[in-house]
Amino acid sequence: MTAQRNLDADLDFAAQLADAAWAAIRSHFRALTQVDGKTNASKPGFDPVTEADRAAELAMRALVAAHRPGDGVTGEEFPETASDSGYRWYFDPIDGTRAFVAGLPVWTTLIALAGPDGVPLIGVIDQPVLGERYLGWPGGARLDTAAGRQPIRSSGCADLRLATIATTDPFIFSPPEQGAWNHLRSAARITRYGLDAYAYARLAGGTIDLVAESGLKSWDVAALIPVVRGAGGLATDWRGNPPALGGQIVCSSSEAVLEQALLALRRAAD
Amino acid sequence: MTAQRNLDADLDFAAQLADAAWAAIRSHFRALTQVDGKTNASKPGFDPVTEADRAAELAMRALVAAHRPGDGVTGEEFPETASDSGYRWYFDPIDGTRAFVAGLPVWTTLIALAGPDGVPLIGVIDQPVLGERYLGWPGGARLDTAAGRQPIRSSGCADLRLATIATTDPFIFSPPEQGAWNHLRSAARITRYGLDAYAYARLAGGTIDLVAESGLKSWDVAALIPVVRGAGGLATDWRGNPPALGGQIVCSSSEAVLEQALLALRRAAD
Repeated sequence: MTAQRNLDADLDFAAQLADAAWAAIRSHFRALTQVDGKTNASKPGFDPVTEADRAAELAMRALVAAHRPGDGVTGEEFPETASDSGYRWYFDPIDGTRAFVAGLPVWTTLIALAGPDGVPLIGVIDQPVLGERYLGWPGGARLDTAAGRQPIRSSGCADLRLATIATTDPFIFSPPEQGAWNHLRSAARITRYGLDAYAYARLAGGTIDLVAESGLKSWDVAALIPVVRGAGGLATDWRGNPPALGGQIVCSSSEAVLEQALLALRRAAD
Repeated sequence: MTAQRNLDADLDFAAQLADAAWAAIRSHFRALTQVDGKTNASKPGFDPVTEADRAAELAMRALVAAHRPGDGVTGEEFPETASDSGYRWYFDPIDGTRAFVAGLPVWTTLIALAGPDGVPLIGVIDQPVLGERYLGWPGGARLDTAAGRQPIRSSGCADLRLATIATTDPFIFSPPEQGAWNHLRSAARITRYGLDAYAYARLAGGTIDLVAESGLKSWDVAALIPVVRGAGGLATDWRGNPPALGGQIVCSSSEAVLEQALLALRRAAD
């Protein structure tokens, strides 16, 4: 059964979830005692999962159980729980575990709430070392820092040749995806790697113009969409269709840059 | 003529230089009004130089002229000045201009002081958005943050297969360098890109184990060496010889990882 939700209250609750995640994570950053390798055929290479990741997801799940008991939870570390309300939370406590292990402050905590139709309504991209919390909701987005809350807006860049673009790892693309990425990289002005979800946060913040990734999971994607769209950006799959909660995603600051990028990305679309 | 220097005073002065650079830079971060493309055949692609870069270097040069008038200055943006003291300052106000333009807090301000023999004695790698200042001197290194000063130490990692490695851009290497890098990347546990000098800061901080780069300039390199060595790390060229102030550099947290990396890097040494 679904009921009318107060999304303002959910946004505040999402911020509480982010606080709880950081409380569980902070003692582990740059002080790792243990890094596990997780076997995952779809992600070649090393996929570290830390105590911090698990502790933060448990902390957020406990808050949902206490304060939103009817909602479902989907997270990276533990089994999915059922939803009675029709609403579902998506958690990735540490998106960018490689950055985390390398002691770099560009990993993020991802939190999203999706409605009964599965579309993410609220997204949070939190980078607590930097003290930057990006929040998005239907019709708006903001950046919370110690200095206060400020509305954010994606850039007006309308030409791929002037764009700053990002992807997480140029070496994990399939060969057709690599071809498409090389096309974008050759056309764009500046290319950045290794940012994971922080790239989408800076797209919403107006300093990155296009992000394309593949092989994503629901908990990687759900938080990005409300933040990017709330800041005026666009999010689609590599065909230009509404994004699924996973797989190939492209986000852009403008229709013009998106169309230019899709010329290359469509040829490598799943 | 050379004279005995008080390096403690020079280290304090270097911190003042970093403060002055940030004062000149801060209003420009994530608020760029102008990005120039500089023609530079040795650095293919886009090489942005900002007003911030120039203003910060002028601010630091003015402090040297006022407080260390006999010292020479070598910086990226303005002509080299002569040294009467035998000592020379090296300034790169914004190392990682691409990261800066993309609004990412992994650019740094680099400051070094080299002695009459040209060897860097003091190095500062400053990341003011994060509030992290890495300082190195003969025999020590520390990280200054709002929470205080703490000694830093490179990791004990002794096996390239367990190492986190970094380079700035895998696509600007020459073909032999790419071959060497691919060897390292395939062997190592985690690879990071786009960090510029911040990678060496985190090597000194113990969370990155190896950094290899090529095509560096004196102002890119001079600050790194005292920070890395002061934290117990090693810095050489790609043959394993003492590093020049430029060109191909490799820094490592241990002799064992360095030797493993040099097996590949030597084949692409200049």
